[in-house]
Amino acid sequence: MNTRILGLDPGLRITGWGIIDVSGSNLSHVDHGTVTSQDEEDLSSRLLSLYTQLTDIIHRYAPDEAAVEETFVNKNPLSALKLGAARGVILLAPAYAGLVVGEYSANKVKKSVVGVGHADKSQVAMMVGRLLPKSGGVTKDAADALAVAICHAHHRTFQQKIRATI
Amino acid sequence: MNTRILGLDPGLRITGWGIIDVSGSNLSHVDHGTVTSQDEEDLSSRLLSLYTQLTDIIHRYAPDEAAVEETFVNKNPLSALKLGAARGVILLAPAYAGLVVGEYSANKVKKSVVGVGHADKSQVAMMVGRLLPKSGGVTKDAADALAVAICHAHHRTFQQKIRATI
Repeated sequence: MNTRILGLDPGLRITGWGIIDVSGSNLSHVDHGTVTSQDEEDLSSRLLSLYTQLTDIIHRYAPDEAAVEETFVNKNPLSALKLGAARGVILLAPAYAGLVVGEYSANKVKKSVVGVGHADKSQVAMMVGRLLPKSGGVTKDAADALAVAICHAHHRTFQQKIRATI
Repeated sequence: MNTRILGLDPGLRITGWGIIDVSGSNLSHVDHGTVTSQDEEDLSSRLLSLYTQLTDIIHRYAPDEAAVEETFVNKNPLSALKLGAARGVILLAPAYAGLVVGEYSANKVKKSVVGVGHADKSQVAMMVGRLLPKSGGVTKDAADALAVAICHAHHRTFQQKIRATI
């Protein structure tokens, strides 16, 4: 049975999204892209725009589960507060649609896809291309979103195996 | 004509809300309270709980406008990120319902209600009680939420007067 996973790489200006189908240990690419909000708009309008775009994607692809990359903690608390606001809305959209939402640190995502936690973005994009050959040319934002979906797929399979042996 | 204003004082654990009606320079208290989320739940569940509680309040009281207190910027970026996530959802709820959302700094709120920007919470609560005698015994969180609604009422009246003289 297929499980469809939505991966999200949060940002206030650009949020990457990627959808994959998982069947046993097989992964297949469904679609990916980015949603954006305009710098010049006020915060509540930007959050509303992010939320409605994400809700549209969730309705269009009907994923079963979601995975969100834990945001890099900026040293500037004001930036952290703004990025946090975007992340709040990005976590809310799948939760409101009734999906279980997994959160994974950037290191865990890289380790899961590249094998090491300190890989750079271009290595992640390359490995995403190998693991999902049908994804074609993926922007870095969307590659990170597909990577977090892949990471979630690995962890849920692992957890299912543990459950099966208990 | 009455304008109904929803004031919100954001927090992940406790968010204060207060509703007032404004008619010219007359303010009247409608209702107030707090919405809470449980520490032990994961972040997406807490955000979902905050959002649905706020959406219920918006449907119940049908405010025309909303005002949110700008959050204190914590020195710890991780706390700022969590509080930011709550604030994102708190800004989203009225924006999604089609309300204009004003944001006011804590200093602006205090100046508007008490007359000075460095007033403490008990002074704010006392002045809210005087300006809205029907509010009765108000908790500090709800007093701050009513105060941001009052602040919004003052600013929108002032802006309307400026527009009328142009």
